[in-house]
Amino acid sequence: MRISALSEQSDVTVASIKFYLREGLLFAGESSSATQTEYDTRHVARLRLIRALIDVGGLSVAAAKAVLAAIDDDAMPIVYAFGIAQHAVTASLASSSRPSDESLAEVAALKAERGWQTFEENPGEPIVARVLDAFRAIGRPDLVELMPAYAEAAELVSRADLRSVVEVGTDDRSRMVETVVVGMALGDGLFTGLRRIAQEHNARQLGLPGSSIVREPGTDQEPEIDPKGNAS
Amino acid sequence: MRISALSEQSDVTVASIKFYLREGLLFAGESSSATQTEYDTRHVARLRLIRALIDVGGLSVAAAKAVLAAIDDDAMPIVYAFGIAQHAVTASLASSSRPSDESLAEVAALKAERGWQTFEENPGEPIVARVLDAFRAIGRPDLVELMPAYAEAAELVSRADLRSVVEVGTDDRSRMVETVVVGMALGDGLFTGLRRIAQEHNARQLGLPGSSIVREPGTDQEPEIDPKGNAS
Repeated sequence: MRISALSEQSDVTVASIKFYLREGLLFAGESSSATQTEYDTRHVARLRLIRALIDVGGLSVAAAKAVLAAIDDDAMPIVYAFGIAQHAVTASLASSSRPSDESLAEVAALKAERGWQTFEENPGEPIVARVLDAFRAIGRPDLVELMPAYAEAAELVSRADLRSVVEVGTDDRSRMVETVVVGMALGDGLFTGLRRIAQEHNARQLGLPGSSIVREPGTDQEPEIDPKGNAS
Repeated sequence: MRISALSEQSDVTVASIKFYLREGLLFAGESSSATQTEYDTRHVARLRLIRALIDVGGLSVAAAKAVLAAIDDDAMPIVYAFGIAQHAVTASLASSSRPSDESLAEVAALKAERGWQTFEENPGEPIVARVLDAFRAIGRPDLVELMPAYAEAAELVSRADLRSVVEVGTDDRSRMVETVVVGMALGDGLFTGLRRIAQEHNARQLGLPGSSIVREPGTDQEPEIDPKGNAS
């Protein structure tokens, strides 16, 4: 198909397609004549992946490029591809400020407690430590106690991620890497969205002041809530 | 203290302090003379909260302002303050594109299954539905099956959040709202960081191809890993 048909099928503008070609995110089509280039369904699939990473996953063009290069390089060991994806997906959260030794030690203690073993460059550790620093900076060291429950949730989610990778089967390398990368990039959004829903539900169940939902004392019954927020 | 001392104590530049004063994120100091303004420890605490929301939580100045206004307004019912915080913290993930009816129906089914009750405007639902759309767009409808594990993790995390709110006690309203807001804004980073650590650990335990860690078949023993990634 021509670039115009590719644009229509993928719902990506011709200008964007040309940009992705120039930046090396999208592989070139086949020249059918001096002035014509042919694209096929692999280009449609690739454009959808690019848009999922950028629009839904929130990756920068540079991060998406690094991640796609890792998917494409068949010679790259999967654990390296995985590391590249982790760093690319996490880049937007990175900061140059060094967390305190106290918070880094707390992250190390959590890792030891859970038996989590990682390389020293794991991008998650400074992020966690910086949040712990922020809790202390605002006078809320008590919030550090949130960490074990969050760690348990992170374990749950990453086990599910890995199960989805294993189900693909280890014989299809590029699909396996794609699963890891997509799960990582879109999984953050999936979790954040679900957390918002669970938060609102639990806040209402607790009957926070100002809410019209009050739990009957001494009962474990969940109150019925109609869409206007009135307890039945 | 003078603005220069406030800057030193809070580690925020004088220019930024003036900006936050002008934008209404920071309340004014007390005029001690025609040319002098006095600040106190409440200003230091507020500046730390502003920086935690913006630098660590990733909120825009406008979102931080909305959230701080909700903390300050004693007349605002807590559930409304909670809703404002949810929308402000989620704004960066929002998009104008409407998710498909199919994905919205899947989110509704999950809510029914878990007994999650929310208002229709909960900001999490379109985010989740858009991720499900992205899974399908890239030809990976199988990844929709990640949702139940992520939902379980979201439930765990939001219960921990709410416990930390309840521990504050319902008599200190502004501290309670602050706990909700800070937990929401910084909790995303806390979870994302921990997820990166758990991901790497679990990927290594699974012995993905290219990793040097191989699980002994028929045993449940976790292999020992040294920092270079070699199984013992």
